[in-house]
Amino acid sequence: MSGSPGRPGGGSAAPEGFTLDEIVGRLGGVLVGDGSRRMTGIATLEGAGAQQLSFLSNPRYRSQLRSTAAGAVIVPAAARDDVPAGVGAIVADDPYVYYARAAQLFDARHRAKPAPGVHATAVVDPSAHVAASACVGAHAVVDAGARIGERCVIGPGTTVGEGASIGDDTVLAARVTVYHGCVLGARCIVHSGAVIGADGFGFAPSPEGFVKIPQTGRVVIGDDVEIGANSAIDRGALDDTVVGDGVKIDNLVQVGHNVRIGRHTVIAGCAGISGSSRIGERCMIGGGAGLVGHIELADGVVVGGMSMVTRSLDTPGFYTGAFPLMTNRDWERAAVTVRHLDDMRKRLRDLERRAGPPAGTGDGEPS
Amino acid sequence: MSGSPGRPGGGSAAPEGFTLDEIVGRLGGVLVGDGSRRMTGIATLEGAGAQQLSFLSNPRYRSQLRSTAAGAVIVPAAARDDVPAGVGAIVADDPYVYYARAAQLFDARHRAKPAPGVHATAVVDPSAHVAASACVGAHAVVDAGARIGERCVIGPGTTVGEGASIGDDTVLAARVTVYHGCVLGARCIVHSGAVIGADGFGFAPSPEGFVKIPQTGRVVIGDDVEIGANSAIDRGALDDTVVGDGVKIDNLVQVGHNVRIGRHTVIAGCAGISGSSRIGERCMIGGGAGLVGHIELADGVVVGGMSMVTRSLDTPGFYTGAFPLMTNRDWERAAVTVRHLDDMRKRLRDLERRAGPPAGTGDGEPS
Amino acid sequence: MSGSPGRPGGGSAAPEGFTLDEIVGRLGGVLVGDGSRRMTGIATLEGAGAQQLSFLSNPRYRSQLRSTAAGAVIVPAAARDDVPAGVGAIVADDPYVYYARAAQLFDARHRAKPAPGVHATAVVDPSAHVAASACVGAHAVVDAGARIGERCVIGPGTTVGEGASIGDDTVLAARVTVYHGCVLGARCIVHSGAVIGADGFGFAPSPEGFVKIPQTGRVVIGDDVEIGANSAIDRGALDDTVVGDGVKIDNLVQVGHNVRIGRHTVIAGCAGISGSSRIGERCMIGGGAGLVGHIELADGVVVGGMSMVTRSLDTPGFYTGAFPLMTNRDWERAAVTVRHLDDMRKRLRDLERRAGPPAGTGDGEPS
Repeated sequence: MSGSPGRPGGGSAAPEGFTLDEIVGRLGGVLVGDGSRRMTGIATLEGAGAQQLSFLSNPRYRSQLRSTAAGAVIVPAAARDDVPAGVGAIVADDPYVYYARAAQLFDARHRAKPAPGVHATAVVDPSAHVAASACVGAHAVVDAGARIGERCVIGPGTTVGEGASIGDDTVLAARVTVYHGCVLGARCIVHSGAVIGADGFGFAPSPEGFVKIPQTGRVVIGDDVEIGANSAIDRGALDDTVVGDGVKIDNLVQVGHNVRIGRHTVIAGCAGISGSSRIGERCMIGGGAGLVGHIELADGVVVGGMSMVTRSLDTPGFYTGAFPLMTNRDWERAAVTVRHLDDMRKRLRDLERRAGPPAGTGDGEPS
Repeated sequence: MSGSPGRPGGGSAAPEGFTLDEIVGRLGGVLVGDGSRRMTGIATLEGAGAQQLSFLSNPRYRSQLRSTAAGAVIVPAAARDDVPAGVGAIVADDPYVYYARAAQLFDARHRAKPAPGVHATAVVDPSAHVAASACVGAHAVVDAGARIGERCVIGPGTTVGEGASIGDDTVLAARVTVYHGCVLGARCIVHSGAVIGADGFGFAPSPEGFVKIPQTGRVVIGDDVEIGANSAIDRGALDDTVVGDGVKIDNLVQVGHNVRIGRHTVIAGCAGISGSSRIGERCMIGGGAGLVGHIELADGVVVGGMSMVTRSLDTPGFYTGAFPLMTNRDWERAAVTVRHLDDMRKRLRDLERRAGPPAGTGDGEPS
Repeated sequence: MSGSPGRPGGGSAAPEGFTLDEIVGRLGGVLVGDGSRRMTGIATLEGAGAQQLSFLSNPRYRSQLRSTAAGAVIVPAAARDDVPAGVGAIVADDPYVYYARAAQLFDARHRAKPAPGVHATAVVDPSAHVAASACVGAHAVVDAGARIGERCVIGPGTTVGEGASIGDDTVLAARVTVYHGCVLGARCIVHSGAVIGADGFGFAPSPEGFVKIPQTGRVVIGDDVEIGANSAIDRGALDDTVVGDGVKIDNLVQVGHNVRIGRHTVIAGCAGISGSSRIGERCMIGGGAGLVGHIELADGVVVGGMSMVTRSLDTPGFYTGAFPLMTNRDWERAAVTVRHLDDMRKRLRDLERRAGPPAGTGDGEPS
């Protein structure tokens, strides 16, 4: 990590890799082939060489499996017979999850943490508590009464405000801002430029202009949450903004004040969640999608990319609202017609009235 | 504030709160009940306890008013009789504005500023002017010829470029960037990650690629402006980008070069204003909305969330353009049909011609 | 630049300007009028005075040309006769490109770089290589093994991660983050708040929640690339994310992991490119537009603002998909009708069947 006070010894790099026996010993799965074979990294089916491990999780890449030059592949049982002769195989229930865990094993950076300590240029208030096992990077600022948990990494230039609390093993990358009083759980990852706890957008309109409403709530974030680069999560007005355990938020996402996001929900890049909305557990919000304020999404709701959710959704399911793409010429015509849609519907109804009862199954619209 | 050189003495915290008499003495309104009752904070009607002040501004929460356990409530005259027995009442013309002002009163952080002074780790150019009453935080940078006004707060890690000017009582949070030459008025609040004065997006296409057009204008921001986290306001190409007094800009908003925004306009999160557009006074731009470049919006225009404004709007009013949300299955069908809209319109016209003059009021489309 | 270790001597400012002879001598074009006339800057046709150079690139401003008070104007041959008497003219093949180059000439800031050196507060790892001609600003961090090329400018508070490489003459503004291992080419400009190389958004869903997939690829950026304020470009999962030479990316743009962007493509503000998509050369992506993942855009594709691209586009051309703007009242009606579009299409077909073969050219839809 940049500006970290030190780096661990030689333990983090693993150029020697792991044998297939070692991998299966740590991660499970059924090995087919020579367990002494040594892998030094992971690559795609197309790109992998004889010392690299690959994986098949999407059946449509099965032809790539048949021609892969990988040293070994992680496959579901159903694809075991497609593994080329001479290529090792690890049969796993969920090859994608297995790949994720194997990648964690190979990624030295994932396993290693910078050495503990506070960089000489960091500014840590005497009343702050920084765990001895934590690492505070160059030019970081930890303000009065803040608490940095065990084995945390506070990146260079990152600011942790007064009284904020960062849970054990959480990593704040370079240039993160956590405002005063906010709380992050354990094992979170927050990427550069993310801003947690800026004021929610609250103003009372008056004849003299808008009167600012102090935002006195906090942001409270659970465990195992990841927050992408340059995303912003506003503090609550009176109550807190709450992000549940296991939530994953991509880059450039806006979360308004008093929003509540249920556990294991995923929000893709550029999405915007307006104030006071509540999102259930295990929801998926597509990239660039938007929620208006004060609505509620049930557990398991999936919102398509660039769709605007204007009302509460009580039923799990996949919802979309986005204008289909066309050539600009076709779009110009369609856009004109969209403005006449209501008129067209009336004219259609009129024609139906004049034509009398339909000959067929009667799918006419009740007028 | 994080990394501030010091904090004021005991004056900022007010755990003892205010009596209702004191509140009405400072903010006006008509008190009903025991004026010696002491409030220590503000909470929602549902959450407030006996020492907390609450408010009713939206009539649909009137049932919550009837059952509130708050010590006192701010209400309009019309709701005065719904205040439960034993709960104090402050009758105000605009309870929401009254709540905003009361919240400012209770919020120590709102009233207090960190103690003046320049943090030891800040880098201030000798030719810069920093008011003695201003506070410059840890690792902040104030470059040559810049001017920091009275009682300003410059957050940790914030950069004020060469010749930039920050008006009195303006607060820049942690990690704000103000580029060279830009001007902010008095009493502004700029949240973390905001970037004011980066180059506008101007390039001349040439056979060898794009030729950069130097952006030599500034950003000029009026008084009482608030700018949200990670928003970006570009400097002008030749002229300035101008943001009027009282404008409120939410998080992750993009304002292109040479844009002009009229006084007291509000722009919600994730909106994008393309270059050279002009927005009138007291407009409201919804979250995720976009304006194309070189258009003009009259005073009082309201643009719905995620709507794209492709032309000038001369008339105040509420405009929207966003595909309605449906189940993905219904959307897939609708999306196919949208591509045939122009064709459907022609077919409808053909049927009308063949059907002859309409039986009714003649709402057929002129062909 | 803020917090730079020094500024060059008197060479950067050019208050004395340039004569028309000097301009034409450097930039070419055909001069009409007195070559000894001295220009001190560039302004719009409307705003320019007698010592300022202006330009006509858009024919619809020809009336402004006829009344300009500029000292001289850059014009195409076709507009030469519209230049008022007494106003000098430079006739150029492409007046807009000529304006761009002239503006570079006049802009002292464009020509000048801060003096070389590493600011006393910067933290540079001993194993990093910083060219002697480079400038590293206040509170910047350059981590182990990183490489800063000749004449680079590293802004205040900017972080260059372990092993990252910054090409010659590249400028990183204040508060930029370049993560470990990422590579930028020569002559790039990166604006404040941009984040290059944060983890891509990759998780394997499992019954216990999402398992993080380590993102072990890099971001590799070509030469002459510009990246706007607060944009984010994620590192690849296994392979790299690649941005071609001459690409221009505006503010608040999201580029997902493993995306590949072809040379000289332009991406406007607030756009989002989902993971693994490939964009050809000389494409233009409109503001707020979005691409789903794993699609491919041919060279020369133009995508309109706020349009969602849901499929690969093999043919160059201009594509759009955005709901047209209307008054909110009309929109509410249209939105209702959009939900019935599929039904309307079926009813239209039914009416056509009942009406028999069309009288005209038979543009009925095959059923």
